Amino acid sequence: MSPAYAGVDLGGTSIATVVVSAGGTIMGADRRPTPRRSQLDEVPATIAGSVHAAIVDAACDPTDVVGIGIGCPGQVDRTAGTFGNASTLPDWPDSFPLAAEVSSHLSRPVVLDNDVRLAVAAEISSGSGRAFPSFLGVFLGTGVGAGLVLDGELWLGRGNAGEFGHMVVDFEVDARPCSCGRTGCVQAYAGRAGMEAAARAAADAGRTTALFDLMEFGDRDRLTSSIWERSVRGGDPLAQELVATAARALGAALGSTVNLVDVDGVILGGGLAVALGETFREAVASAMAERVLASSVPPVRLTALGDLSGAVGAAMLAAQAD
Amino acid sequence: MSPAYAGVDLGGTSIATVVVSAGGTIMGADRRPTPRRSQLDEVPATIAGSVHAAIVDAACDPTDVVGIGIGCPGQVDRTAGTFGNASTLPDWPDSFPLAAEVSSHLSRPVVLDNDVRLAVAAEISSGSGRAFPSFLGVFLGTGVGAGLVLDGELWLGRGNAGEFGHMVVDFEVDARPCSCGRTGCVQAYAGRAGMEAAARAAADAGRTTALFDLMEFGDRDRLTSSIWERSVRGGDPLAQELVATAARALGAALGSTVNLVDVDGVILGGGLAVALGETFREAVASAMAERVLASSVPPVRLTALGDLSGAVGAAMLAAQAD
Repeated sequence: MSPAYAGVDLGGTSIATVVVSAGGTIMGADRRPTPRRSQLDEVPATIAGSVHAAIVDAACDPTDVVGIGIGCPGQVDRTAGTFGNASTLPDWPDSFPLAAEVSSHLSRPVVLDNDVRLAVAAEISSGSGRAFPSFLGVFLGTGVGAGLVLDGELWLGRGNAGEFGHMVVDFEVDARPCSCGRTGCVQAYAGRAGMEAAARAAADAGRTTALFDLMEFGDRDRLTSSIWERSVRGGDPLAQELVATAARALGAALGSTVNLVDVDGVILGGGLAVALGETFREAVASAMAERVLASSVPPVRLTALGDLSGAVGAAMLAAQAD
Repeated sequence: MSPAYAGVDLGGTSIATVVVSAGGTIMGADRRPTPRRSQLDEVPATIAGSVHAAIVDAACDPTDVVGIGIGCPGQVDRTAGTFGNASTLPDWPDSFPLAAEVSSHLSRPVVLDNDVRLAVAAEISSGSGRAFPSFLGVFLGTGVGAGLVLDGELWLGRGNAGEFGHMVVDFEVDARPCSCGRTGCVQAYAGRAGMEAAARAAADAGRTTALFDLMEFGDRDRLTSSIWERSVRGGDPLAQELVATAARALGAALGSTVNLVDVDGVILGGGLAVALGETFREAVASAMAERVLASSVPPVRLTALGDLSGAVGAAMLAAQAD
């Protein structure tokens, strides 16, 4: 037999799973909605179901899959196999034994790490990051996660570096509120949660938009990346305006990053960036270029791993732990 | 004889000079206004005069001073001994042979480098920076210069890192204009030129302020750090408001820096920070702390070198070149 590994990316909106060979090839995948916040106790079983489906998709012998890695939002205790304090999963307990719970469903070893660190690790070794010795990887989902890579290594500073999502793009008191409790963070403008709150406020104030009709029609309880993409493509003015603001805010924070650290490139990933695609990448790159002081502007690329960076990184973690 | 070195910091507002022993002790100093923009051809002679005065202040044998270093704003060609494109010296030529001109006055070798790099080098080796393996050094003067030090070394990225002054603190279209031609850069709020432009606009719009009376009374053509300090201390409401805004803007950009890079500390220097002193440092540190996501907030310290970081770094450069 040739061993394979499952990697799971537990997001605030969806759970993405891949099965990856020991050589790094993606053999199969699955994606399903994260249970609603009233049903968070279903998360371990939902992850197990997604792993089973990805194994079926991979068409491999299930016994070949010898380990599972999970990328979790918030603060992860790798040794204990627990995580908590995830702003993208409201009502999640402070410390939940996810590794043990999923392992009891799947009868295989399960290891956890922070979702963004795993996504960045995947970019360093197998994604677009190989082109850039130093880069910022930015993942747009419910929030804005990121990792700063300097000379090929994730830079951690005192342990908390890479919180690009909380770079300030508007220091005035009337700036948009962020889920961190502050105002003016780029995440408030370019993360789905902040964009949805702004859309809700505009709709409540009388702006016409099909965003929430699409949400209810799809039986979702939040605006997914796909809803944003379809609304922008369909010409919904509010969706277009909020996505344009997201690109401008990202451009400002990326410009600040380039002016301060002068990285070789920027990699855009995460469900929202992947769904909005090339048009959005161009808008972000253009907004960033306006802010860069140096005569040469570093490239902004969409990740080659699509919206699977986190899941691939989690599978890499499982392989390392094996 | 024991050799000594002169270091000159050529700023947009003043020229600061030190004479430093081979062991690094500051033996003497001089400070005088930078010639007005209509008299920039007087800069080499003014620098030579300042070096002579610093040698007199040092009470050393003039022949002991065997080399001179000059920190210049803008883009420096160290090999050619030229510099240009300095936004803090309007009307300065694109490439001026400053090293040769000053050397012809002083009959000693003259070396140039970028003023901010020299100030950061001084902080790394002899200033507050020794306490921090990784830090941001920020120098508030006519503009906002900075250097990012990671693990004890100046981080240059692709060659242009450290442009903290052009981190974006307000991405909205009505943000304050910056001398770089963009809007919303922290330099527009926390550099003397941006603060003076905002004060002028407010005064033109009818706000009462003593700032410009002090300037004319002192026969200056711009608002110096000392004028800002005296106006704030004297209770001038506009000066207090603009300095408070500078602290808030710096707090936002420093918070962004800490969230992204998670440095061990911040060192504040430059004439404006040194003149405004401890009260201003506290306001900046407090505004930064509000923005930092990590539970532990890195310290913000005033440089131990006062407003001589750049001059000391320039003398170190002369010693290295000797």
